Amino acid sequence: MNREQLISEIRQKKSFLCVGLDTDIKKIPAHLLDREDPVFEFNKAIIDATKDYCVAYKINTAFFEANGAKGWVSMEKTLQYIPKNIFTIADAKRGDIGNTSHMYARAFFETLSFDSITLAPYMGKDSIEPFFQYRDKWGIVLALTSNEGSKDYEQEKMGEDFLYERVLKTTSAFTNSGNAMFVVGATKAEEFLRIRKIVPDHFLLVPGVGAQGGSLADVVKYGMNPDIGLLINASRSIIYASSNTDFAEKAKEEAKKMADEMAIYL
Amino acid sequence: MNREQLISEIRQKKSFLCVGLDTDIKKIPAHLLDREDPVFEFNKAIIDATKDYCVAYKINTAFFEANGAKGWVSMEKTLQYIPKNIFTIADAKRGDIGNTSHMYARAFFETLSFDSITLAPYMGKDSIEPFFQYRDKWGIVLALTSNEGSKDYEQEKMGEDFLYERVLKTTSAFTNSGNAMFVVGATKAEEFLRIRKIVPDHFLLVPGVGAQGGSLADVVKYGMNPDIGLLINASRSIIYASSNTDFAEKAKEEAKKMADEMAIYL
Repeated sequence: MNREQLISEIRQKKSFLCVGLDTDIKKIPAHLLDREDPVFEFNKAIIDATKDYCVAYKINTAFFEANGAKGWVSMEKTLQYIPKNIFTIADAKRGDIGNTSHMYARAFFETLSFDSITLAPYMGKDSIEPFFQYRDKWGIVLALTSNEGSKDYEQEKMGEDFLYERVLKTTSAFTNSGNAMFVVGATKAEEFLRIRKIVPDHFLLVPGVGAQGGSLADVVKYGMNPDIGLLINASRSIIYASSNTDFAEKAKEEAKKMADEMAIYL
Repeated sequence: MNREQLISEIRQKKSFLCVGLDTDIKKIPAHLLDREDPVFEFNKAIIDATKDYCVAYKINTAFFEANGAKGWVSMEKTLQYIPKNIFTIADAKRGDIGNTSHMYARAFFETLSFDSITLAPYMGKDSIEPFFQYRDKWGIVLALTSNEGSKDYEQEKMGEDFLYERVLKTTSAFTNSGNAMFVVGATKAEEFLRIRKIVPDHFLLVPGVGAQGGSLADVVKYGMNPDIGLLINASRSIIYASSNTDFAEKAKEEAKKMADEMAIYL
């Protein structure tokens, strides 16, 4: 999916919500567990319920890999079920030496046909650039994450910059960095100012609004650009809004609530 | 596998060789391609040929994921085929927020039963500690890698330390860090001195000897500790030593050559 299509979808739906499919077999409502593929059945119901209120789905690969090869089948089926007008994210945090990153790019952009994948920047240039070689595909690079461990390195200084700022600057100089987006944790709304100075144009994938304490109003105020430039992710607060037979209906209500708040800002 | 078992295997075989299974379907000898699972057939032959000369196998997940769910089946079969006395490494470079890292640990230590997994440290403490909670399982944290991109961040200063030194120090303070090993690229033998000052006891997984320019003699001189403390990986130089029907025989010769050199130092 290209940038114009994503922006158009956002403007049309008046939403920049991304729904995170962190589907844990241990949290799926009991009535689905006797199906052939409970994880897929759950995701299918969530997608049906939320697709009018979100512009992206983020598939967290860990939750599928926990079920082994069977989990990868559930992931493939889930990806295929997502309507083609909705942006797809493999939340996989991959990154390795060049020839291995080429293989990961093949895995997620060719064998599977995700629009994007999240990437861990530690190993530098040759671990990231292979993902930028695909037209209309996106590498979403970790910059500042919303977890406690972000203090260990990301928020430490490297020269004049915090490491997360260094990652933004360095990545922006890579070949085809127009195909980059960045992960920016929403618990630090004031840091969006620093971030938008370095990457005014790029899309930012923002976890941590709601459950992890970030405020949508702050993120919009400091993070939005003329093309919106934001995808706000919510996972557990939507998909586990209820653990009963009404889980899809409750997920729909949660997604709609977030989209309604987003519409105010568009 | 616990530390004593690994050390005992090394002393018995007089080898600290790890064979990397970066099995690319596009590089497999033609005569295997009509088998039901060519990747597994190739790995099976490589394992049969090299198992007397190595103490570890490193499965590079990217190469299996490139074949989708089918690739995960090949990975599961390959892992099961490795003799139980040999240490197994999921070279997966995983790492995410705590609850997701718990899922990756479940995927690789429970659903699959790898002895260890490589980890990307960028997201800090809660992304790494879940892997250290398993008795006799190992989290192999990236410190200094052997690729060009290691210059972007790893070899830059964070305060008084290079980032890779900071990672060694910080990881060593995590809960259950006795279950840590570290990836250290062998193209920088002089840096082993710095590294061994910080982590004298931990095992180091060393890629980059041979093809990428590192010298085994240097690695041994500066990196070995009283428990050996080294696993030296070779992937392509062994598994692609020949692209013909004699590939397994040639792989055996290459593995034996490396083990013979290692025996001198033991």
